[in-house]
Amino acid sequence: MPALTSFVTYDASHPFSLENLPYGIFSNASNPNRRAGVAIGDLILDLCALSKSTWFKDTGIDDPTILQQPTLNALIALEPGVWAKFRAFLQSLLSSSSPLSKASAEEKEQLFAARLAPSVQLHLPIEIGDYTDFYSSIEHATNCGVLFRGKENALQKNWRWLPVGYHGRASSIVVSGTPFHRPCGQILPPQAEEPVFAPCKKLDYELEMGFVYGGSATKPGQRLSSSEARKHLFGCFLLNDWSARDIQAWEYVPLGPFLSKNFCTTVSPWIVPLLALEPFKAPQYDHQPALLSYLEDVDGYNFDVPLKVEIRPAQASGEVYTTVAKSSVKHTYFTPAQMLAHHTTTGCTMRPGDVLGTGTLSAPGTEGYGSLLEKSEGGKRSFRLFTATPAVKVGSQGEVLVDGKDASSWIDANSVERTFLEDGDSVRMTAKVEGDGFCIGFGECEAKILPALP
Amino acid sequence: MPALTSFVTYDASHPFSLENLPYGIFSNASNPNRRAGVAIGDLILDLCALSKSTWFKDTGIDDPTILQQPTLNALIALEPGVWAKFRAFLQSLLSSSSPLSKASAEEKEQLFAARLAPSVQLHLPIEIGDYTDFYSSIEHATNCGVLFRGKENALQKNWRWLPVGYHGRASSIVVSGTPFHRPCGQILPPQAEEPVFAPCKKLDYELEMGFVYGGSATKPGQRLSSSEARKHLFGCFLLNDWSARDIQAWEYVPLGPFLSKNFCTTVSPWIVPLLALEPFKAPQYDHQPALLSYLEDVDGYNFDVPLKVEIRPAQASGEVYTTVAKSSVKHTYFTPAQMLAHHTTTGCTMRPGDVLGTGTLSAPGTEGYGSLLEKSEGGKRSFRLFTATPAVKVGSQGEVLVDGKDASSWIDANSVERTFLEDGDSVRMTAKVEGDGFCIGFGECEAKILPALP
Repeated sequence: MPALTSFVTYDASHPFSLENLPYGIFSNASNPNRRAGVAIGDLILDLCALSKSTWFKDTGIDDPTILQQPTLNALIALEPGVWAKFRAFLQSLLSSSSPLSKASAEEKEQLFAARLAPSVQLHLPIEIGDYTDFYSSIEHATNCGVLFRGKENALQKNWRWLPVGYHGRASSIVVSGTPFHRPCGQILPPQAEEPVFAPCKKLDYELEMGFVYGGSATKPGQRLSSSEARKHLFGCFLLNDWSARDIQAWEYVPLGPFLSKNFCTTVSPWIVPLLALEPFKAPQYDHQPALLSYLEDVDGYNFDVPLKVEIRPAQASGEVYTTVAKSSVKHTYFTPAQMLAHHTTTGCTMRPGDVLGTGTLSAPGTEGYGSLLEKSEGGKRSFRLFTATPAVKVGSQGEVLVDGKDASSWIDANSVERTFLEDGDSVRMTAKVEGDGFCIGFGECEAKILPALP
Repeated sequence: MPALTSFVTYDASHPFSLENLPYGIFSNASNPNRRAGVAIGDLILDLCALSKSTWFKDTGIDDPTILQQPTLNALIALEPGVWAKFRAFLQSLLSSSSPLSKASAEEKEQLFAARLAPSVQLHLPIEIGDYTDFYSSIEHATNCGVLFRGKENALQKNWRWLPVGYHGRASSIVVSGTPFHRPCGQILPPQAEEPVFAPCKKLDYELEMGFVYGGSATKPGQRLSSSEARKHLFGCFLLNDWSARDIQAWEYVPLGPFLSKNFCTTVSPWIVPLLALEPFKAPQYDHQPALLSYLEDVDGYNFDVPLKVEIRPAQASGEVYTTVAKSSVKHTYFTPAQMLAHHTTTGCTMRPGDVLGTGTLSAPGTEGYGSLLEKSEGGKRSFRLFTATPAVKVGSQGEVLVDGKDASSWIDANSVERTFLEDGDSVRMTAKVEGDGFCIGFGECEAKILPALP
């Protein structure tokens, strides 16, 4: 499929192409009200302004006030057919042949905002009624299992039968760019008999994707099949399920993670419609043993969207990020639709705007660790983060030189060690998939760690 | 303290005294809009109507629209000092010496609704952002521990150090009177190697109290001490954390209960202000080992509010309920304020309307089991429920006669066996505490079990 072309110009590697059109909530200096927008290139199409303009016709959305809310919930609550029609309308409106391309500068100024202008603030795009976090990457579950129980018993007996999950804390979810304080809590020090109250020493991230439930709410008791569930998935965003490993280890028996996960959960500001990810389907896992029939989904699929985690250590001079993990959304043993279907089996009510996190998306191999728990083997192995950008050259003898020094002495002088995160560190997650002449990107999911409050 | 007297007449055993004044959300035939009300005797004072009347002055609430909402959240979000002032205003307005007592019948008709009128509907009184469930009764935790791990290891190592809790599902919470379908889910049959998908066979209740967070939201990272936390507890209601034990047993490793708890959680419709429970303080537990200082609360206390669980079996002719448990709110090892304080330690944001469930409130002794898991020892011991009301008499020889028969043959003919709940059973929880010439009651927390959906 060749790239679509828009009158908004951007290059083929740009994350916010006409094929993407992610939804967000923004405000800026010219209008401090939170309102819906669609990212296209370096612009934001203001959906609130659009809904009040003459361009708003044949959109599939009968009620323009749906686009005049401070969250996307009303839009997300529409039926999937309406999402598709509205997306087609937007793609046409923004295409290079659109009459809008010939509109006056003044008219365009009313409809578009400069996305990267300093006054632009991106807000949490949805009001989240309930947030569920799964544990669906077989690599992650295996890595954790090996750490805690050894290789023989890495996966618990139920793991291949159902998407293991738990309820997260909706109030913990904040938008990318919101710093947070290192959490304090009860920790059992090594070899100690009694816990202490102290700042977390094993602060970790978890690389996840959050899927947003849309369409009408389910009725109490209503079960969705996997194929019905698939239609209810509106879109997704990056999700960092920050975790305090030492607090978690002490508190989690027998009811699961609680305070170790509820202090902050960062999401990227743009919700990428699942319709935009259709070209990037990946086969679902070969489920062995075979799933129970209610979970089976012969037409089911995953999404192959490459993911990256980078850390900028506190000591970095400038914007120096070191990549610490690469993975993909495809590493969920159960598809997002299967997670949602399973979620409804007992009759749990789903409401538009509910979020389903995949759990840590680890890929096979040491570069695929989606958390530091895995990367540092629970704190036993350190790794290095750059504090400066190396200028690598090959010397006259063919040796690798970095700023004129040999690589290892340069690294020693320009990097720091980590096992878990330190105050001042920033973690950035990104996701971007390349199509034929275009890209679909998710923007950034980033936050900086502030010192614990006294 | 002698009883307060109201111009609304009710007897000394009435649950909704002038000392109580619980808040709820109701609608009725004369006005189908959901609105706030206060229960007094067999009437509801319509707070929405009151806020628009000439009687609304010196209430402590500056903005009358706070009382014109379809939930209590705006009222609950006010500062604790305002709750106290508004409560004092209501007690004065409803007192026997109030000028309102001499108002015209027409005027009273506008302000009051008949609470028991068939058209009155009581709704979920708050919009619940997040719902947390603790595990704070030492009797319950010990009983469960003995079942699963034996007497020696009944309490896990962390249990006496911190209030163990987990995040529940806010969307699962419904108001008393809402029937629900028996959940289906994955269950590992006894001795089986592979799970099946089937209706739950071990459907259970959990007798709990839900405490409602009020006042301003905490800031991210903000920790509340136990004494600060106490001021944020607005009120409480009965909470039945329905549980599917067979689904729970298979799914809960390692992240805790999930689908086994999110299909339905029933709460009583009236929120009793904690100010009404001040006369019923009970000493907190003697914490051994001593708590870490952040949890200490020298002025802390529990509440001694007697609780009762009754079941009306499907086979009952008429309103025949058998009492299956008696307990009290005082059986939380950590006080509600300590649970809230602990909840904020990592910096988790609390918002007005958030609910903290105590966990199953079991009392010492076999009559105090707050769940059937305990009462039936996981299904091993059955108990009987009456299907008819016995008319007990003492015969001429001093023998006990029931409807003219000896007691045991009458019971055999007029009762059924249970280990867990069956379709058509109703579970009713009530709470009522007696003061000096008055009572504080909570209304009913009841629901009926419908058959599983096909």
